[in-house]
Amino acid sequence: MRCGIPEVVLAEGKETADLVSIMERHCAAAGRCLATRVTPAQAEEVARAAGAAGLSCRYEERARTLVLSNGREPAKSGGIVGILTAGTADIRVAEEARVVAEEMGCEVRTAYDVGAAGVHRLFPALKDLSKAHVFIVAAGREGTLPAVVAGLVDRPVIGVPVSTGYGYMGQGQAALASMLQSCAVLTVVNIDAGFVAGAHAAQIAALAGRR
Amino acid sequence: MRCGIPEVVLAEGKETADLVSIMERHCAAAGRCLATRVTPAQAEEVARAAGAAGLSCRYEERARTLVLSNGREPAKSGGIVGILTAGTADIRVAEEARVVAEEMGCEVRTAYDVGAAGVHRLFPALKDLSKAHVFIVAAGREGTLPAVVAGLVDRPVIGVPVSTGYGYMGQGQAALASMLQSCAVLTVVNIDAGFVAGAHAAQIAALAGRR
Amino acid sequence: MRCGIPEVVLAEGKETADLVSIMERHCAAAGRCLATRVTPAQAEEVARAAGAAGLSCRYEERARTLVLSNGREPAKSGGIVGILTAGTADIRVAEEARVVAEEMGCEVRTAYDVGAAGVHRLFPALKDLSKAHVFIVAAGREGTLPAVVAGLVDRPVIGVPVSTGYGYMGQGQAALASMLQSCAVLTVVNIDAGFVAGAHAAQIAALAGRR
Amino acid sequence: MRCGIPEVVLAEGKETADLVSIMERHCAAAGRCLATRVTPAQAEEVARAAGAAGLSCRYEERARTLVLSNGREPAKSGGIVGILTAGTADIRVAEEARVVAEEMGCEVRTAYDVGAAGVHRLFPALKDLSKAHVFIVAAGREGTLPAVVAGLVDRPVIGVPVSTGYGYMGQGQAALASMLQSCAVLTVVNIDAGFVAGAHAAQIAALAGRR
Amino acid sequence: MRCGIPEVVLAEGKETADLVSIMERHCAAAGRCLATRVTPAQAEEVARAAGAAGLSCRYEERARTLVLSNGREPAKSGGIVGILTAGTADIRVAEEARVVAEEMGCEVRTAYDVGAAGVHRLFPALKDLSKAHVFIVAAGREGTLPAVVAGLVDRPVIGVPVSTGYGYMGQGQAALASMLQSCAVLTVVNIDAGFVAGAHAAQIAALAGRR
Amino acid sequence: MRCGIPEVVLAEGKETADLVSIMERHCAAAGRCLATRVTPAQAEEVARAAGAAGLSCRYEERARTLVLSNGREPAKSGGIVGILTAGTADIRVAEEARVVAEEMGCEVRTAYDVGAAGVHRLFPALKDLSKAHVFIVAAGREGTLPAVVAGLVDRPVIGVPVSTGYGYMGQGQAALASMLQSCAVLTVVNIDAGFVAGAHAAQIAALAGRR
Amino acid sequence: MRCGIPEVVLAEGKETADLVSIMERHCAAAGRCLATRVTPAQAEEVARAAGAAGLSCRYEERARTLVLSNGREPAKSGGIVGILTAGTADIRVAEEARVVAEEMGCEVRTAYDVGAAGVHRLFPALKDLSKAHVFIVAAGREGTLPAVVAGLVDRPVIGVPVSTGYGYMGQGQAALASMLQSCAVLTVVNIDAGFVAGAHAAQIAALAGRR
Amino acid sequence: MRCGIPEVVLAEGKETADLVSIMERHCAAAGRCLATRVTPAQAEEVARAAGAAGLSCRYEERARTLVLSNGREPAKSGGIVGILTAGTADIRVAEEARVVAEEMGCEVRTAYDVGAAGVHRLFPALKDLSKAHVFIVAAGREGTLPAVVAGLVDRPVIGVPVSTGYGYMGQGQAALASMLQSCAVLTVVNIDAGFVAGAHAAQIAALAGRR
Ligand SMILES: Nc1ncnc2c1ncn2[C@@H]1O[C@H](COP(=O)(O)O)[C@@H](O)[C@H]1O
Ligand SMILES: Nc1ncnc2c1ncn2[C@@H]1O[C@H](COP(=O)(O)O)[C@@H](O)[C@H]1O
Ligand SMILES: Nc1ncnc2c1ncn2[C@@H]1O[C@H](COP(=O)(O)O)[C@@H](O)[C@H]1O
Ligand SMILES: Nc1ncnc2c1ncn2[C@@H]1O[C@H](COP(=O)(O)O)[C@@H](O)[C@H]1O
Ligand SMILES: [Mg+2]
Ligand SMILES: [Mg+2]
Ligand SMILES: [Mg+2]
Ligand SMILES: [Mg+2]
Ligand SMILES: [Mg+2]
Ligand SMILES: [Mg+2]
Ligand SMILES: [Mg+2]
Ligand SMILES: [Mg+2]
Repeated sequence: MRCGIPEVVLAEGKETADLVSIMERHCAAAGRCLATRVTPAQAEEVARAAGAAGLSCRYEERARTLVLSNGREPAKSGGIVGILTAGTADIRVAEEARVVAEEMGCEVRTAYDVGAAGVHRLFPALKDLSKAHVFIVAAGREGTLPAVVAGLVDRPVIGVPVSTGYGYMGQGQAALASMLQSCAVLTVVNIDAGFVAGAHAAQIAALAGRR
Repeated sequence: MRCGIPEVVLAEGKETADLVSIMERHCAAAGRCLATRVTPAQAEEVARAAGAAGLSCRYEERARTLVLSNGREPAKSGGIVGILTAGTADIRVAEEARVVAEEMGCEVRTAYDVGAAGVHRLFPALKDLSKAHVFIVAAGREGTLPAVVAGLVDRPVIGVPVSTGYGYMGQGQAALASMLQSCAVLTVVNIDAGFVAGAHAAQIAALAGRR
Repeated sequence: MRCGIPEVVLAEGKETADLVSIMERHCAAAGRCLATRVTPAQAEEVARAAGAAGLSCRYEERARTLVLSNGREPAKSGGIVGILTAGTADIRVAEEARVVAEEMGCEVRTAYDVGAAGVHRLFPALKDLSKAHVFIVAAGREGTLPAVVAGLVDRPVIGVPVSTGYGYMGQGQAALASMLQSCAVLTVVNIDAGFVAGAHAAQIAALAGRR
Repeated sequence: MRCGIPEVVLAEGKETADLVSIMERHCAAAGRCLATRVTPAQAEEVARAAGAAGLSCRYEERARTLVLSNGREPAKSGGIVGILTAGTADIRVAEEARVVAEEMGCEVRTAYDVGAAGVHRLFPALKDLSKAHVFIVAAGREGTLPAVVAGLVDRPVIGVPVSTGYGYMGQGQAALASMLQSCAVLTVVNIDAGFVAGAHAAQIAALAGRR
Repeated sequence: MRCGIPEVVLAEGKETADLVSIMERHCAAAGRCLATRVTPAQAEEVARAAGAAGLSCRYEERARTLVLSNGREPAKSGGIVGILTAGTADIRVAEEARVVAEEMGCEVRTAYDVGAAGVHRLFPALKDLSKAHVFIVAAGREGTLPAVVAGLVDRPVIGVPVSTGYGYMGQGQAALASMLQSCAVLTVVNIDAGFVAGAHAAQIAALAGRR
Repeated sequence: MRCGIPEVVLAEGKETADLVSIMERHCAAAGRCLATRVTPAQAEEVARAAGAAGLSCRYEERARTLVLSNGREPAKSGGIVGILTAGTADIRVAEEARVVAEEMGCEVRTAYDVGAAGVHRLFPALKDLSKAHVFIVAAGREGTLPAVVAGLVDRPVIGVPVSTGYGYMGQGQAALASMLQSCAVLTVVNIDAGFVAGAHAAQIAALAGRR
Repeated sequence: MRCGIPEVVLAEGKETADLVSIMERHCAAAGRCLATRVTPAQAEEVARAAGAAGLSCRYEERARTLVLSNGREPAKSGGIVGILTAGTADIRVAEEARVVAEEMGCEVRTAYDVGAAGVHRLFPALKDLSKAHVFIVAAGREGTLPAVVAGLVDRPVIGVPVSTGYGYMGQGQAALASMLQSCAVLTVVNIDAGFVAGAHAAQIAALAGRR
Repeated sequence: MRCGIPEVVLAEGKETADLVSIMERHCAAAGRCLATRVTPAQAEEVARAAGAAGLSCRYEERARTLVLSNGREPAKSGGIVGILTAGTADIRVAEEARVVAEEMGCEVRTAYDVGAAGVHRLFPALKDLSKAHVFIVAAGREGTLPAVVAGLVDRPVIGVPVSTGYGYMGQGQAALASMLQSCAVLTVVNIDAGFVAGAHAAQIAALAGRR
């Protein structure tokens, strides 16, 4: 645990052997270990090693996250995180955030694909998520959903630009720019940085939960 | 007249003497002449010369436009153009568009500052403008109003990014990017290009008006 | 139908199973459904499912569009859209615009590859398209054809930058920049955004056609 | 009040007369009104009008904020916000954040200029601020202080890039980039956006305070 | 003389005293000396010193060039350079090129402002310049005139982007990009670099002239 | 022939069938036809069709050019073009320029790889090329060779930035920038644009050759 | 040897046959030859040829360097170079620097992966490297480790930005920017330029070593 | 003293009163204090205060540096730093580097303006500076002098891009890019960062001097 955030391993660019040994080491120390940006091939090998070591292993393909554990569950913080996405292409990033927040003890409620085809799906979604202490909103292309949500709720909102879109400032750059320039009150993370959004949201939610 | 668009003189960077003689020449040929990006000082000198030449002269400070005429009015096209702005800083650009569209024979209806403080002012504004054949929507910073309007009306919408905002991609660039990436159907002009938006909208409105 | 624009599905990045079910749902509701940026492989699978469901299916490989329908034709709007391209590499984008405009009830006339080898092919092309209410002009590299066309016709012109070219600002950026900076009156869409150009043009043409 | 955030007026680019009337209107409605990016000249005129209207007025030159009030104090939220700056040039942005957070009912504790000359001033500063529920860290040039703080505390950290520095990516761009790329968990606002950081932090602190 | 190019002094950023002494030294060595980017104030002081030293001095305000000489004329190369501009704002850059080419012994023929209001002025202009061995074409905003000229003449064409235009890639960048991406055969110099264009053209023209 | 430049076909992005028919058409009209950016696979198919049609066909793999001809040779212009490269990676671009210049009737002399390992190879190279009327200099990475050459010869010099290098402004952008900023007199073409450099140089050389 | 730096061959983009002959030539002249950015496939072929020629050959896969030699060792300079990396992804660049510095006669001490998981590993690492005359510090993403090291040691520090990271200014650009903007005293090389860092460090260390 | 580098105060953006008190404090502690980027107005006020406090004060207008001291001289390191500039505009940056290196106990030898008008001034300059242990080379526009020097000397070379030049990548960006892409071995500092170059060079020279 570093500053309340569990040690999270970035699998991207790591040799699988290294990945296995790093994760097993963390797992031995902390009972659980989370890795992000894990390919299915990497996941398979870690799972095999985990089985041999008597550890349980959960890979979520869409989130590309892998959790290794000795059975211990994350301590509940009592915080509730709401996660929304504008489209379906944003879900993979939202799911990474979800897994991170859950590992940090939060309850997570999600409402995906609420923004692309008009906002008629947004109002019921926000109602479902009305208990959330903090919101993560992932959006690509022009990235306006986070500002819309921030205009409707009185909780902190974190925008996550997603690398969709084509042409001028495609691949998340227009989304990043419009979130930073927004008149609404919201903070932003790097393009596709579901991990940072999830961990920051969990830190916020914990403030409310620990009351 | 070039392609249905009156000869419009860009005053910026022109010597005032040149400006006067060019405008008087166009006015003699076409009865009226419009200049854009005119400073108050330039306007004053042109007005003086116009008076001496028996021409009428109207300067609009916010739009920074100047119209010289021998009394002839623009021929009515029957088209109606709706112009909206997100904030107050966008009005100067909207006004340039308005003057151009009026010079091209359109009726123009405007609704300014409808976007900054939530969209509660947008719905009545759109109702007021419901007769418009085409919409111009000017917005700075994150520039999302054009897409919102395009999602609510079934007429063509033209977005005009305005050079407000500070920091990363401020001065209209984030607005340009988010309009180009928008999932909504809208076309875009250069940052602050009220003239192009007004002339293009007038061309569109004329299609409806000339029925 | 959203604001006069049929529900259009962006196939890029969607699982084929999702694509099939989304398109069939729209088709059931509206009689027809259009998808853009569809790969041949996706098209084949949707066609198979469509056949099983008794729907007709038309894939246009160059446009990468797919139309599913129960036989119902789009309502004619009476509008006429003219589409030109500078080179052959721009045709795929122009074709996407064409399919969209046709789905929105327009008659479309095209003149492709008129700009690369001098403008001697432009004048006869514009004559062929002289009935058009609005023009879409697609061009890559330096992207000057839209401005040339705008200088010759008195109808609205929409420029579409295309991601051709190499080196400095290649891949559509120089074209986008020169269209935005143009002295001619034209509006612009994102690089390669044939869909937006086609839908906006159809909205314009409908104004003339519905007289 | 919009979503728990008081109506904040952006004075930049507003005519002083408009500024006065907007602020008096908000003040009448809500008892208090805050304006940001206010020049000394604007402040003087608003103060004069406020005096005539029997309102109290506080201008903070470094923060460039102006608060008009009928005497009513902001409701205390119980939240505590810690604000740090790396250098002295970052203080003006930090102060804007402070005023906003205080207007939203927070207690604010500050530690300025802790980062430039080594980190020996950082540890005592963090000790002073150890009660804070959330941290705002403003830094220009390479902008690394927010990541350092995030590595030392287990509360949410918001980074504010400040427009200092010269040469390549000076004026806040390198700071923005390094905060977004940081391995540490922190969210970011636009360059110089003290207002957004202050309001977001106040929303977070309120979660803890309202327990 | 360095490689056939006279020593040209860039006045910008030089102390006037330094400028005077450098120019007098070159003049003593070569009979003539040219300075570019000279302010009127600098020109006045150099003229005074030149008078005292018995040298003749010619300042051209639009070109911002200053020629000091002991009466000797540049040797005629027999080369002819044609210079065109799209608008009036481009003339200052064209004039710098003209003075440089004349100092290098060329005859220069000019046709300014032929491009902004349609190309009807271009054909007579090219006829007037038909004897030129090489063409310099200066253009701002979208910068398309050089490519148009290159498509009409069979002599080498040099494009000079000029720092006009506003908004996205304004100030010469769109012009530079469109010239570099052009399908036509033309080479390019830096934005506003009249000096380089003039000297390169004079080198080319000399090849023809010296026959 | 367009303005003294033979019709050159850009093979990139063309269907091979189209390529064959276009080239045969040009060949029938002009006796010869040149295509650039031709892949080996395209070349093979064109060669097969050419053989069947009784035309001769020459593919140069490094230059990626293909010449189809009925035996007619290009008319000699008498001009001499010198081509240099800094490194070996620049040769492919230089070779494209060479073929184009030869097709336009020039004699071409080359000196490749003279710049990377110090300039000791440059002086003998320039001596070998001393008869050239014009120089093309191709260079990647920091792209300084063109300026060095321009400082040593009194003929026109054309710089060609090449897309080598890695990291910041790699792939030709640093080279383009340094050529445009150079104090030396040289003009520039797009990154990797061997064709434009070769054709422009041939136009220049022809001025000297036709004496 | 050029200026104390051995001739280093950049293998990237070279035909293997050329690579072999260039390296053998250098080896004959200087006893040893180093190539950088060598693929395993290239290495294998060079090794085969080296064996046939009686030369020894060492390929380091992580560094992607290849050293050919006739048995002669590099002359010891007495200088000591310390190399650190922030993460594991930076090691390949650090290793390239190490091989270059060793070829230039330095002793190299390394401490890899000291920065990612907090700085608790940095202090022991610096202690191990306390004899170094100069430090190379490689870091990707936000690239802050070089500045931290520079704040702790009183030897020259060279920062190497590494092309890791994703999203905004990923791939080394944020790291480059933050190193250039750093308040600490350090110089910088291009992204991934291990070769330049190693050679520059070796030049520095030699100053100390040759005492 | 921080890591062998004296505490250097960046005057830019500081209130003069703050500047005076900070400098006097450092001076009391260390005997001397250096400030950079000091305006003449600031210098005058600090001088007045210094006089009153019995401290000596030296302002160098070109370098914009100010040294306050109680008479104590910097300890000599025995290191020798050579500083060159390409043009005259680069001298202000070179002078800042010189003052910093002298404050750090180095002997500094300079050769300014050796690069603009050909390299005939470079060889004698390098001979004059042949005792230097390290070189700083400042250059604007295309910034090639550092690489030329690095190819001629076997000491470490530090390039300083200077914010001169106009148009595309002017103001130091082309210089920065070409230095980073250079095939020669050199390290780079931020645009105009004379301070960093001087301090880094002094650290290097000290290695040689302290023998
Ligand atoms: N505000 C404006 N923004 C963009 N283009 C303009 C504006 N005003 C006039 N123009 C166009 O710019 C050109 C002005 O050229 P000129 O007045 O001859 O320098 C004409 O093509 C005008 O139609
Ligand atoms: N310093 C500031 N930076 C960013 N946004 C601000 C600032 N001050 C006020 N705002 C917001 O900007 C908008 C100002 O709108 P208005 O004052 O109506 O032009 C409101 O949404 C404010 O909440
Ligand atoms: N307007 C100009 N644009 C670009 N380069 C110029 C210009 N005027 C002079 N030069 C060149 O810039 C250098 C001037 O250097 P100096 O006058 O010594 O600072 C010489 O190489 C000139 O040939
Ligand atoms: N990894 C590298 N990064 C940057 N420059 C290199 C590298 N390896 C070799 N060089 C230099 O690049 C040039 C290689 O030139 P060549 O091998 O002749 O193409 C020489 O100046 C080398 O010193
Ligand atoms: Mg809110
Ligand atoms: Mg709509
Ligand atoms: Mg038109
Ligand atoms: Mg933390
Ligand atoms: Mg031509
Ligand atoms: Mg020359
Ligand atoms: Mg240090
Ligand atoms: Mg060297």
